Amino acid sequence: MSAATRKAIFVVAGVGNGAGTGAASARAFAKAGYRVALIARNPESLASAAKDIQAQGGEAAAFPIKAYTHAQVKSGFDEIKKYWPDGEIRVAVWNAALFVRKGFLELTEEEVEESTQTNIIGAFAFARQALLAFQDLELDDKGKRGSLIFTSATAAWRGTKLTSAFASGKTGQRALAQSLNKEFGPKNIHVSNVIVDGIILTDRTANFDGFKHLLEDEDKRLSPESIANSYLYLVSQDRTAWTFELDLRPAHETW
Amino acid sequence: MSAATRKAIFVVAGVGNGAGTGAASARAFAKAGYRVALIARNPESLASAAKDIQAQGGEAAAFPIKAYTHAQVKSGFDEIKKYWPDGEIRVAVWNAALFVRKGFLELTEEEVEESTQTNIIGAFAFARQALLAFQDLELDDKGKRGSLIFTSATAAWRGTKLTSAFASGKTGQRALAQSLNKEFGPKNIHVSNVIVDGIILTDRTANFDGFKHLLEDEDKRLSPESIANSYLYLVSQDRTAWTFELDLRPAHETW
Amino acid sequence: MSAATRKAIFVVAGVGNGAGTGAASARAFAKAGYRVALIARNPESLASAAKDIQAQGGEAAAFPIKAYTHAQVKSGFDEIKKYWPDGEIRVAVWNAALFVRKGFLELTEEEVEESTQTNIIGAFAFARQALLAFQDLELDDKGKRGSLIFTSATAAWRGTKLTSAFASGKTGQRALAQSLNKEFGPKNIHVSNVIVDGIILTDRTANFDGFKHLLEDEDKRLSPESIANSYLYLVSQDRTAWTFELDLRPAHETW
Amino acid sequence: MSAATRKAIFVVAGVGNGAGTGAASARAFAKAGYRVALIARNPESLASAAKDIQAQGGEAAAFPIKAYTHAQVKSGFDEIKKYWPDGEIRVAVWNAALFVRKGFLELTEEEVEESTQTNIIGAFAFARQALLAFQDLELDDKGKRGSLIFTSATAAWRGTKLTSAFASGKTGQRALAQSLNKEFGPKNIHVSNVIVDGIILTDRTANFDGFKHLLEDEDKRLSPESIANSYLYLVSQDRTAWTFELDLRPAHETW
Repeated sequence: MSAATRKAIFVVAGVGNGAGTGAASARAFAKAGYRVALIARNPESLASAAKDIQAQGGEAAAFPIKAYTHAQVKSGFDEIKKYWPDGEIRVAVWNAALFVRKGFLELTEEEVEESTQTNIIGAFAFARQALLAFQDLELDDKGKRGSLIFTSATAAWRGTKLTSAFASGKTGQRALAQSLNKEFGPKNIHVSNVIVDGIILTDRTANFDGFKHLLEDEDKRLSPESIANSYLYLVSQDRTAWTFELDLRPAHETW
Repeated sequence: MSAATRKAIFVVAGVGNGAGTGAASARAFAKAGYRVALIARNPESLASAAKDIQAQGGEAAAFPIKAYTHAQVKSGFDEIKKYWPDGEIRVAVWNAALFVRKGFLELTEEEVEESTQTNIIGAFAFARQALLAFQDLELDDKGKRGSLIFTSATAAWRGTKLTSAFASGKTGQRALAQSLNKEFGPKNIHVSNVIVDGIILTDRTANFDGFKHLLEDEDKRLSPESIANSYLYLVSQDRTAWTFELDLRPAHETW
Repeated sequence: MSAATRKAIFVVAGVGNGAGTGAASARAFAKAGYRVALIARNPESLASAAKDIQAQGGEAAAFPIKAYTHAQVKSGFDEIKKYWPDGEIRVAVWNAALFVRKGFLELTEEEVEESTQTNIIGAFAFARQALLAFQDLELDDKGKRGSLIFTSATAAWRGTKLTSAFASGKTGQRALAQSLNKEFGPKNIHVSNVIVDGIILTDRTANFDGFKHLLEDEDKRLSPESIANSYLYLVSQDRTAWTFELDLRPAHETW
Repeated sequence: MSAATRKAIFVVAGVGNGAGTGAASARAFAKAGYRVALIARNPESLASAAKDIQAQGGEAAAFPIKAYTHAQVKSGFDEIKKYWPDGEIRVAVWNAALFVRKGFLELTEEEVEESTQTNIIGAFAFARQALLAFQDLELDDKGKRGSLIFTSATAAWRGTKLTSAFASGKTGQRALAQSLNKEFGPKNIHVSNVIVDGIILTDRTANFDGFKHLLEDEDKRLSPESIANSYLYLVSQDRTAWTFELDLRPAHETW
């Protein structure tokens, strides 16, 4: 672990109960030497995810916020900078999402608004703080000031029957990611979008009866650790050849 | 003009000052025998657009609303049904849009929220009322209950440097349109998305100095009447072969 | 029918047995006043399709060729110009296709080569002759020198399990169409691609047992006449707002 | 280096003069413990690329073929199996390409045919031999029988003004890759497509005057070694989360 890496901070928003992509990414980057800042809305599960990482020798802290608004996200980042005053935020992962799956006429006004709020406006707020944190840093040994990764989904590629709200949110978020890649690439900031196409094995999905046969079969569901590996890879790409988008799916997924 | 057409109502939201796509569509459908209901936020220009159509022998009425919220849009549709109690809403065009073009870090919170509100949430609210109006109608002679058209833009296909907010809104809106096409096609409701890729000749664009050379050249800008013709064509398509998306651009447009 | 239209020649390659899209397009353009030139590889069915059009008062002639090679396609166009020396080729439709649906390892070398030959190289040869015929014509009343339309398919958007050969051919053809739209738009030549997404009702498909339930149901299959209408519409678009791509599918198609 | 890896063979077709992606991939996989089989049409540069790898302690052999036909490619793979009878072909990279950039009417018949032959038919032939080699192998520790990677280009996403031939070839090749990913994923064979979007620094491009300013600037051109790293990463992905497509471009590339 180099001095440079020890100062580097990894921020992830959307950590859930510790069993999903956000927490797996945090563990992977902690293991790689990053200080890990966890942002989410549930303070209890957040604290527990931070403790897990500390227990394995990693440096981690929890920064709960009430909602993914501009003001709350800004205050989360401000807390992180205060907590590690000598640190540099080098990697930021937007992993928060609001999933809705419903016939269009069954959607409530609130569901449409909440999907838009989390999936788009929250992502704008998070991206803003990450880019502000990156923009004045020195280039690292890969020729980058920072890496911003969005956890995305197949719904970012198209709308389907029951996904009008979710697909609107995810396509909107992907357009943000693509715009940022084009605008901030020339500033040596690397913005990526990772399309997760399939069921992820988590505590939550493990409880859905319909998914059990999928989740026991490594060919049919994604492992959060493998998604986290793709984030490590993206961050490791140098300035001469970096990726905007990659898709991830299990070997036997039908697509 | 058949009895059937005389009863048919065309609704368009987003009419501007009468010189753009919304007003041209209204004129074209009025000429084709539809009763034309105009929805927009500016009552004066709306009234004047309605009068223009009446002056040319068309049937038209203005339904101003204060904002593209669920409640306001619903009340607009309620007014239309009261105004023409024997009419049937058969065609609905969502033409409202909020255009933002700015570097990401220059965007205010308000701009992000307003873009999302108009381009996505407003479109959801409008689509809801249109689909509720269509769903119990008889099939027309094309095998349809109704046609819902979204005026879209190149930004619905991708994000670019200065379009993070606009492209998020427009991709989100396109995902809505695509979801609805897939969900409501089996109910014989036809949902389309029209990508306008280029500058439209309107009073407003005619005043931008940088555009003058474009706007005088028929090969380099779109005419609102030609866009309106594409809407007439989409509505005329029968159930055996209808279109989700078409793109429109001037002959000499670089793309 | 104007003098201008009477001189206009419509060329279509890929006419089959008269029951499909090619023949329906020929009938539609004959009815609209075009002289109709039919190109295909089967001289008998070609002659019979030409007679059908003549029997309905249209002007039509058959130009059989042996293969969709550069030399053969050129000689077909040369014959057309000799046959109607005062005519102008204004519309050209590439409707020939070789459909293959097979597991990759079951494909023979010949199938891969034939798919590529018809779907790509044949399309290049046909486009070349059409563009050479258009490029020196005067602008018509829509501001165009000519219209070139490719009949395409969903396979032009993506490859799927059994379509490696067909999708390679169709995506290759679509890339040709898109390149030509961009290169020849500035010369006022309109190039379009029509994605047919579903089963077309033809004599041939009507004989497939598995399709019968589809073909009797207007909501579930495309009618060649409706596809032909979309070609008439594309040709009618003016230079200010023309379409590169539209998709066509039945109302109840799952996509 | 494990025994398992020592037996693993990496095959790459399209090696050029040793300065590009094909040769860089070969060096990277040789360093990772693979036996490296080089296929290309120029025996001299092929032999020299093999010697370079041997000089650095890698195992490599050259298998020149005359053309990318089914028969020649098959005989290349047969030679590889004879050369290392105890080896297993585990990774295959299709890196051969024919680049054409020309106005459509300037293209010769031969250029269209050669582009199709190399970019599509050659890719089919190579994929066939790779998949036949993979299909009976045991699963490796990532849950895979083998990995097939196509070096692709932006032209695989769209056609542009001067790329009708190249884009037809590359979109066709991408459709092949996508079909194979869907068909062979369920057989635990991983097929990927890597979009190289920008200029690669090679001996050849370094000689183009127009590119010099690009090639001296790490932010503006791709390094073959970084592309090769992405191939190593793709091969390292496990069955629970693997990628079909990733794009690579320099930080300052406009796209």
